[in-house]
Amino acid sequence: MIKEITIQTKKRNELVDITSHVKEFAKSIEEGTITIYCPHTTAGITINENADPTVKEDILRKLSELIPKNDNYKHMEGNSDSHIKATLTGSSATIIVQDGKPLLGTWQGILFCEYDGPRTRKIIIQTRKWKSHTS
Amino acid sequence: MIKEITIQTKKRNELVDITSHVKEFAKSIEEGTITIYCPHTTAGITINENADPTVKEDILRKLSELIPKNDNYKHMEGNSDSHIKATLTGSSATIIVQDGKPLLGTWQGILFCEYDGPRTRKIIIQTRKWKSHTS
Amino acid sequence: MIKEITIQTKKRNELVDITSHVKEFAKSIEEGTITIYCPHTTAGITINENADPTVKEDILRKLSELIPKNDNYKHMEGNSDSHIKATLTGSSATIIVQDGKPLLGTWQGILFCEYDGPRTRKIIIQTRKWKSHTS
Repeated sequence: MIKEITIQTKKRNELVDITSHVKEFAKSIEEGTITIYCPHTTAGITINENADPTVKEDILRKLSELIPKNDNYKHMEGNSDSHIKATLTGSSATIIVQDGKPLLGTWQGILFCEYDGPRTRKIIIQTRKWKSHTS
Repeated sequence: MIKEITIQTKKRNELVDITSHVKEFAKSIEEGTITIYCPHTTAGITINENADPTVKEDILRKLSELIPKNDNYKHMEGNSDSHIKATLTGSSATIIVQDGKPLLGTWQGILFCEYDGPRTRKIIIQTRKWKSHTS
Repeated sequence: MIKEITIQTKKRNELVDITSHVKEFAKSIEEGTITIYCPHTTAGITINENADPTVKEDILRKLSELIPKNDNYKHMEGNSDSHIKATLTGSSATIIVQDGKPLLGTWQGILFCEYDGPRTRKIIIQTRKWKSHTS
């Protein structure tokens, strides 16, 4: 099953928690896999801590220090930094599902990584069941 | 189904578009997943913009600035930078397929990342159908 | 099939070879896919050279140079660097299996990336068979 979700980002660089969407999709799956895919070239998907918001701030600040917005880039749209961050982050995450729940660690959340916002973005989620709940 | 494709890279650092191969494999799939896997330790797979070639140049230049070729590495083969870039890029991409087409975003292309070329390289592509086209 | 393996890391930053575990799981699969998933937010999974140990040392040293342990981070647990490295590395690897063997390149090993050890860690491995060995 393939579904699309839309999210509205609010800043140029922002990590948006999308875990609740994935948990919803996992409910009907006894055993399976979920792919979360980002169809944008200036954004990505990562899995990281979602409890303390300072972790997200540190990730975004350090990435922007390593890959500054302005740095004699050839691409004329002013978002080469966003493209580079997208490649370093990756465009998808794969999640294992068991008994209707994604097997995330205690502190893990699934984060949409906006690197050239604010924008309206979409995420594609594919669920694959090896076994279905019949209850 | 598993297939191998061979590509010849021309430079030490180069992003080679392999999207057309993946589109070809997707044609027979109504709904499924494609894994594109790089079996090399000094290369990787990424998904990024394929329209304006300056994006690729900016990605490669910035990566080489962050991870220079020569930097007191212990590994004696002169390609530690390539190995490090491979880990940051990742060795595979997962693509969702629907109605015979990979669900790539408008600007997305699938790129083989050569970090220690020129070389003859191979890529392994696995297609998994949940539904097949019967037409 | 989903299995968990436990590993004990020994250093703060360490790349631990877990290839033999994945090879064991692959044996019963004629054609399939294996997902290796890290449920921790200060660790990751990568695929890189496992022959010459200096490659691992160079990867870890360079990552720590780019993302130092102390760098005015806001997160108070002293491991923001570990979280940032986790996002750059990625939390899972996808491996293609054919004839009971993971299709790894000659020099490729599957490495658990510890960035905030030493700790007792777990890895979740999911095998999915498209065809099973019947011998």
